[in-house]
Amino acid sequence: MTDEHWYPSHTTELPLAECYELLASRSVGRVAFVVEGAPRVVPVNHVVDGEDIIFRTSPHTELGRSMAHGPVAFEVDDFDDFSQSGWSVLVQGSAQYEDPDAVPTEERPHPWAEGARGLIVRIRPRQVTGRRLIGV
Amino acid sequence: MTDEHWYPSHTTELPLAECYELLASRSVGRVAFVVEGAPRVVPVNHVVDGEDIIFRTSPHTELGRSMAHGPVAFEVDDFDDFSQSGWSVLVQGSAQYEDPDAVPTEERPHPWAEGARGLIVRIRPRQVTGRRLIGV
Repeated sequence: MTDEHWYPSHTTELPLAECYELLASRSVGRVAFVVEGAPRVVPVNHVVDGEDIIFRTSPHTELGRSMAHGPVAFEVDDFDDFSQSGWSVLVQGSAQYEDPDAVPTEERPHPWAEGARGLIVRIRPRQVTGRRLIGV
Repeated sequence: MTDEHWYPSHTTELPLAECYELLASRSVGRVAFVVEGAPRVVPVNHVVDGEDIIFRTSPHTELGRSMAHGPVAFEVDDFDDFSQSGWSVLVQGSAQYEDPDAVPTEERPHPWAEGARGLIVRIRPRQVTGRRLIGV
């Protein structure tokens, strides 16, 4: 059985500079973390600070508690149904709490969702990869 | 310090039926899985089959190999920058390989990206949750 007609698009790896342009082009990304061996995925508003990703959360959420230890991932993407094309960027690294006073107000991410988000989390990348899916 | 003006939107939990409507409304979602304790996130084309999520991959990818064991998550979302509103649905469960011959051709997910994807993966949910972010 040939399935070639199922796969009209092909993928290319993205250079690091383009990965960062795409990371900075979106205001929402997805943090993935591990709780008792199981993955979770939560959308957050983020900003790019140098090589790092910064977002805010509450220390009382599962996300906030999990950021104190262990590896995390951060993903942004955009896909178009019509052209069956798009891109995704995946950051793999570790998270650490940031001193809120160390981040100037104007550089802080501005979460859309209401609620106290006293915790500023910085993701330091170990690896950043991206790929583009080009429709035909 | 009051941060209220940073959080113009509020969130509501979504009922299960609406979570499934939203899962089925998108052709791309994100599979999260754990490799040596670290999370990964990969976009895939998916379909909803009853309560399950089905997607295709290659057994030779990190994603494909990881689906043989351990818990997984699957996420879909949609956000609008202008209104600062949107929604996300998170499926938490376990993955299993599916016998390709057990899935009728017309019900199989059709990946946009080219390449052989002989592996059909079925995610059986343990928990499905969703929330909507309503801009003001």
